[in-house]
Amino acid sequence: MFKGKDIVSIRDLREEEMEKIFEIARDMIPIAKGEKREEYLRGYVLANLFFEPSTRTRMSFEAAMDRLGGKVLGFSNPSATSISKGETLADTIRMFDAYSDVIVIRHPLEGAARLAADFAEHPVINAGDGAGQHPTQTLLDIFTIVQEFGHVDGLKITLMGDLRYGRTVHSLAIALSYLDADVHLLSPRTLKMPKHIIREMKREPEIHERLEDVIEDTDVFYVTRIQKERFPDPTEYMKVAGSYSITKEHVKKMKDRAIIMHPLPRVNEIDPEVDYTPHARYFKQAFYGVPIRMAILALVLGVIE
Amino acid sequence: MFKGKDIVSIRDLREEEMEKIFEIARDMIPIAKGEKREEYLRGYVLANLFFEPSTRTRMSFEAAMDRLGGKVLGFSNPSATSISKGETLADTIRMFDAYSDVIVIRHPLEGAARLAADFAEHPVINAGDGAGQHPTQTLLDIFTIVQEFGHVDGLKITLMGDLRYGRTVHSLAIALSYLDADVHLLSPRTLKMPKHIIREMKREPEIHERLEDVIEDTDVFYVTRIQKERFPDPTEYMKVAGSYSITKEHVKKMKDRAIIMHPLPRVNEIDPEVDYTPHARYFKQAFYGVPIRMAILALVLGVIE
Amino acid sequence: MFKGKDIVSIRDLREEEMEKIFEIARDMIPIAKGEKREEYLRGYVLANLFFEPSTRTRMSFEAAMDRLGGKVLGFSNPSATSISKGETLADTIRMFDAYSDVIVIRHPLEGAARLAADFAEHPVINAGDGAGQHPTQTLLDIFTIVQEFGHVDGLKITLMGDLRYGRTVHSLAIALSYLDADVHLLSPRTLKMPKHIIREMKREPEIHERLEDVIEDTDVFYVTRIQKERFPDPTEYMKVAGSYSITKEHVKKMKDRAIIMHPLPRVNEIDPEVDYTPHARYFKQAFYGVPIRMAILALVLGVIE
Repeated sequence: MFKGKDIVSIRDLREEEMEKIFEIARDMIPIAKGEKREEYLRGYVLANLFFEPSTRTRMSFEAAMDRLGGKVLGFSNPSATSISKGETLADTIRMFDAYSDVIVIRHPLEGAARLAADFAEHPVINAGDGAGQHPTQTLLDIFTIVQEFGHVDGLKITLMGDLRYGRTVHSLAIALSYLDADVHLLSPRTLKMPKHIIREMKREPEIHERLEDVIEDTDVFYVTRIQKERFPDPTEYMKVAGSYSITKEHVKKMKDRAIIMHPLPRVNEIDPEVDYTPHARYFKQAFYGVPIRMAILALVLGVIE
Repeated sequence: MFKGKDIVSIRDLREEEMEKIFEIARDMIPIAKGEKREEYLRGYVLANLFFEPSTRTRMSFEAAMDRLGGKVLGFSNPSATSISKGETLADTIRMFDAYSDVIVIRHPLEGAARLAADFAEHPVINAGDGAGQHPTQTLLDIFTIVQEFGHVDGLKITLMGDLRYGRTVHSLAIALSYLDADVHLLSPRTLKMPKHIIREMKREPEIHERLEDVIEDTDVFYVTRIQKERFPDPTEYMKVAGSYSITKEHVKKMKDRAIIMHPLPRVNEIDPEVDYTPHARYFKQAFYGVPIRMAILALVLGVIE
Repeated sequence: MFKGKDIVSIRDLREEEMEKIFEIARDMIPIAKGEKREEYLRGYVLANLFFEPSTRTRMSFEAAMDRLGGKVLGFSNPSATSISKGETLADTIRMFDAYSDVIVIRHPLEGAARLAADFAEHPVINAGDGAGQHPTQTLLDIFTIVQEFGHVDGLKITLMGDLRYGRTVHSLAIALSYLDADVHLLSPRTLKMPKHIIREMKREPEIHERLEDVIEDTDVFYVTRIQKERFPDPTEYMKVAGSYSITKEHVKKMKDRAIIMHPLPRVNEIDPEVDYTPHARYFKQAFYGVPIRMAILALVLGVIE
């Protein structure tokens, strides 16, 4: 059911397909840690096409191939490629399609991954396009929650920080609503979740402006980075950033089993002291990027059914 | 006869050596496509040294090693290397010679690959030096023609576009003339094939300035990119570029079995609509870079005789 | 005794541990040359984190993994990573720690490697931090001497050139003194060995300003690059650089078995004519970077005991 499939949007996956991915990802964990060796992807080549900088996503796809015995080619910086000579995206994709078995693409423009999927014969995986989709991030985010709680439905999940520009929170909000989570949104007024995203959610989320309103009964805090560049006035940024960051004081008020997630990189949104509390899950979440991507690659390449 | 051989210029290869490369390349096609696995180069390391940007050539060498189980190291951008500290090319080559089994070099200066071959103990493959040679490109171009027609001799082959600065067309023109093709040259006056190249050809080629003169009886159109930077006046560029590009209208006048090639990347020289006609061969040509380079690597490393 | 060990400073290694590394490195030489294949590190992933340009060190770690069947991920240029988004070094390290089995780090700031070792669960190898340590370079330097003379003690070893800023000579001077070499220092006044380094040496080294004073009875000349940027006045640089470089005339006055080493890249410190004399050992020294790093990787990963 997965062989040859493009993963462009989280909407391309039905709930049972997500569960299949999670099931395989669970088996991949010891391989991702290097505790077990299975070269499922020996002889396969992945084209890792990053038209925009990214470390975590790019490196975890690479680690996923490496751990499964596959090879990776591509670029992290389009300026050293013939794209700088004026080549169209369609031609670049066709070239890599001829040199590899699966294409991963990160691009600054929304729709780029869909276009790539249209031109490539091999499966294409969207690793983030513009303010659009980043489905493997959404999958690893949900996987982190499922690994922790066993389910998503009924959990109170607060997405917080920059909900306007933060790419990862858009598809996550929609996906969580369809998995029957109780989604709450917490952001400064200027960085609110776009209305068209809220309209796509299954249920209207509750909207907050103060962390205090949700701190005591949230199960999952999903914190995102507020970028300085979004604010014309630096003092405005400081004020806002401070109000949506998590400190050790906040942690004391949380539920015992509450977890804190973050797509990383973080800047000041989570105090480093929080790292050592039992609530921090962002590093584990980052690690889960590897088994999730291993599972997806093995499935779309058809080596696991 | 190939083990340890440097491939610096297409003139380093006799006709029977070319045929040997093509024979091996044919066997490599299913491996290049990932349909068959043969790790001929397991344990071997290639140094891919790109002192100048290139995607297709660099990536197809990398794909060739990957598919055959080998490893690749090197750089795509000399600014992140100690070349920026003032190291001589000879010393850089000696270093990579100590770390690898075969060196691929692309360099902006003519003669760089020959110098590299002089200093390296391992075989060196020229991946383009200045306005000089790019023998693996020439081989894959000829291979594309041979795969299509079974032979080169007697075919009417029109090289068109920028014949003055276009690196690939120089060695191709010479090689085709020695393979007894009927070579025609079509370019704006300011971008004519240099006289010293014509002198090296076995037979004097016919020279044209209008596509209409050759469109009806050419077997192979070899189109090249006309770079805007070559023209001081942008309107001059627009006029010239337009006259040497191929549209769907042109295709209608072509022979049924005529094929269109291009070393890629292209900008406006071939209308995207032409991609879907049975004449387009440039994407297949780009793919053939992989089996051709697999064959060359396996031969110079001595794993296939 | 090595499994899981961080190699941050040469002081982390006792003399018998160095000897163990040399013993394994000797066995690795045929594998490093590609004459023998042993995939000790198949399935292992190395994170090669270069926050500062380096070719030789980065590439030799990569070649070491490649030759032993392992995989490498990482970066050579932090600008294409999320470090540019303001991520802390600790967070970057944690991410790569989750994606790999061993971390190699080169960083412009002294202490960066120690910090990395504190945050990573997997072993960390310092590939140079600021003006601080570069232990694998020190090991390959000593290995080169031992391979040549069978021992270090009692040899007259002259470190020459830029002893002030040259990172490699600091830890080398200390290590050689503890191995009972007769260390001599030769540099312009403005580029003298720092006093705190001399204080760390087991025995006070002899200090010279003229190559003539040591040329006749030195066993090992260890030449370093004098960087133009260190001098406000270019003529001053020319004068100084010229006085601490080695020409064919100097070579004539050397002992028959004297060897010349250099960490490379060199600029003008050694005349290329010297390369062809039996005294040149700098290219062999560069090659030894591969078996030394293979030995260290195999030991800290616990695949060889």
